[in-house]
Amino acid sequence: MTAVPVQVAVCGPAECTEAEWDHAHETGRLLAGHGAVVVCGGLGGVMAAAAAGARSAGGVTVGILPAADRTAAGPDLTVVLPTGLGQARNNVIVNAADAVIAVGGSWGTLSEVALAMRRGTVPVVQIGGWHVHDRDGRPAGGIVNAAGPAEAVAATGLFP
Amino acid sequence: MTAVPVQVAVCGPAECTEAEWDHAHETGRLLAGHGAVVVCGGLGGVMAAAAAGARSAGGVTVGILPAADRTAAGPDLTVVLPTGLGQARNNVIVNAADAVIAVGGSWGTLSEVALAMRRGTVPVVQIGGWHVHDRDGRPAGGIVNAAGPAEAVAATGLFP
Amino acid sequence: MTAVPVQVAVCGPAECTEAEWDHAHETGRLLAGHGAVVVCGGLGGVMAAAAAGARSAGGVTVGILPAADRTAAGPDLTVVLPTGLGQARNNVIVNAADAVIAVGGSWGTLSEVALAMRRGTVPVVQIGGWHVHDRDGRPAGGIVNAAGPAEAVAATGLFP
Amino acid sequence: MTAVPVQVAVCGPAECTEAEWDHAHETGRLLAGHGAVVVCGGLGGVMAAAAAGARSAGGVTVGILPAADRTAAGPDLTVVLPTGLGQARNNVIVNAADAVIAVGGSWGTLSEVALAMRRGTVPVVQIGGWHVHDRDGRPAGGIVNAAGPAEAVAATGLFP
Repeated sequence: MTAVPVQVAVCGPAECTEAEWDHAHETGRLLAGHGAVVVCGGLGGVMAAAAAGARSAGGVTVGILPAADRTAAGPDLTVVLPTGLGQARNNVIVNAADAVIAVGGSWGTLSEVALAMRRGTVPVVQIGGWHVHDRDGRPAGGIVNAAGPAEAVAATGLFP
Repeated sequence: MTAVPVQVAVCGPAECTEAEWDHAHETGRLLAGHGAVVVCGGLGGVMAAAAAGARSAGGVTVGILPAADRTAAGPDLTVVLPTGLGQARNNVIVNAADAVIAVGGSWGTLSEVALAMRRGTVPVVQIGGWHVHDRDGRPAGGIVNAAGPAEAVAATGLFP
Repeated sequence: MTAVPVQVAVCGPAECTEAEWDHAHETGRLLAGHGAVVVCGGLGGVMAAAAAGARSAGGVTVGILPAADRTAAGPDLTVVLPTGLGQARNNVIVNAADAVIAVGGSWGTLSEVALAMRRGTVPVVQIGGWHVHDRDGRPAGGIVNAAGPAEAVAATGLFP
Repeated sequence: MTAVPVQVAVCGPAECTEAEWDHAHETGRLLAGHGAVVVCGGLGGVMAAAAAGARSAGGVTVGILPAADRTAAGPDLTVVLPTGLGQARNNVIVNAADAVIAVGGSWGTLSEVALAMRRGTVPVVQIGGWHVHDRDGRPAGGIVNAAGPAEAVAATGLFP
C-alpha cells in the first residue's frame, strides 16, 4: 500500500486582485514543494493561480468544477472533475482537504470556509479575505489569519 | 397547470436559544399563513421550530436532511428528504428557496447564507445571526437584517 | 410529534407512451389514496403523470429536479426542489423513498432502479420497463415485476 | 496552457472475481500507458485493481469515494476524493470520464453504466458485466461489449 497523499484546498474568488493572484500562486508552489496535492475549484482567479503555482513546482493539481463539463476548466490541472453539482461541489472540495487555505474573499469562498469550519476537523487558514463576527461583534473563532503564503502553509500544521 | 408554490427556506443552528426558537416558530407560522411552503434542514433547533410554526398554521413543510435516512428527522415535516449528501445538501436548500431567512448563527447556517448570496437571485434575510465584513471592515453587502419575524417575512418581498 | 409520512418514488422516462402515462397516473392516484407522498423527478412524461394522478386524489407531490431552477418543473407539484445536482439527483429521489415504482424504461430510469437496488433496503417494483440479466443470462434478482398499478402499489408492502 | 488530460473511468464491483481483478488491472495498466488518468470509485475489488494497474505503469489515479472521509480508500490512489455524497458520487465519476469501462456487474456498477448512457456523450464499454434488455427482450443499444482489456481500451476510441 502506498502512503495516503496530503491534500490541501486553496479557495478564493474567480476574479481576484494581483496581490491575491500572487499569494495564491506562491501558496500553490509551496504546497507542491512539500509534496501536497493542491485541490481547488478549477476555475480562474485564485483557483487558477494556485494550480499554476503548484504546477510550476511539479505538483499534482485537482480542479473540482461546478459544471458537468470541462469547458470552464482552468489550465494547469492534472485532474479535472466536472461534478455537475453546482455550488454543492464546494463541500466536495472541503471534504477532500487536510487543510483549507482561503485567499481573498467572495460569497463562494466564504461558503467554503464556513463548510470547512462546520466540518470542524481540519485547519482553516485565510490570507486576507472576509471576516465573520458573531451577534456581539466578536470574531467567530477558529479561522487562522495568516499574513502571507509561507505563514499560511505553516499554519496548516501539515509540514513540520 | 397549477400555480408554482412559493417556497421559503428558514435556516439556523440545530442548537438554538429560546429567543431563536420563538423567532423561527413565528417565522414559520407567518410564512404558512401566506401559503408558502417552508423548507428547512429537517433537524432540530431553528429547523424544528420553523417546521412546528408552519405546521401550526396548516402549512406544508419540507426537511432536507444531510443523512441518507430519516432517523434524525424532526417532527412536523410534511415531506422528509434524506439526501445522503452531507452538508452539500445546504445548496439544495438554497436552490429550493424563493427567499432565505436565517435565524441565529452557526457555521452551517453561514454556509447557507453565503451560498444564497453566491446564487444571487433571491432575498437573503437574517434575524440575529452572524455578520460578515470585507477586508476593510465594511459589512459585505446584500443581506437584509430584520429585527423580528414579521419584518423578516416582509423583507422577502414575496407577500405584497 | 407527527407520524413520519410514507413516501413512494415513481420513476420513468420524460417521454413515454400513452399506456405508460395511464399507468403512472393511476399509480400516483392510488398512492395518494393511501395517504402516501408521491416523489418524482419533477419533469414530464411518467413523472408528470404520477404527479397529476396523485394531485387528482388530493395528495402531496414532490418534484426533485436536476436543474438549479424551476423552469422545467411539471405541473401538479406541491413542492418543487431544483437541486442543481444534475443526474446525481437520482440518488436523492431514491433515498427519499420507502418504495420505488418504475413505469417504463430509459437509461435515467434504469439508473434510479439500480441505485434503489444498490441501496437494498426498500422494495423496487416495475411496470413494464427494462430488464437486467447477469452474465449468464439470468435475471438479476430482486426487482418485482407488476402487471399494472394496483399490483405495483400492493407489491410495495406499505399498505396492508 | 497545458493540454486537458484524458480521463477514463473504470467501474466495477467492490467484490470481484479473480478474472475481473485481472481484467481491471490490465485495463488500468493500458490506460496509464496511453497517458490517461484513471478515475474510479476508490474502494476495493475492480476499483482497487484498476488503480493498481495504472499505478504500476506510472499513471495518475483518482478515487472518488462515497464517504466523507478517506477511511475506506484503496491503495494506489494519487488523489483521494471523499465526496460525502453517497452513491450520488457515481454521477461525479461519470461526468469526469471521457469514456467509461465497466468490468463485471453489480447494481452500483449498473447505475454508473446507466448514468453514462443517460449522459450520452462518451463511449461506454463493458467487459463481462450485466446486460440490459428492453421490454421486447432486445438489448438496449449503445453499450460496447469487449472481450478483454485491450479490446475495451481500443473501443473507447481515445487512443488512435
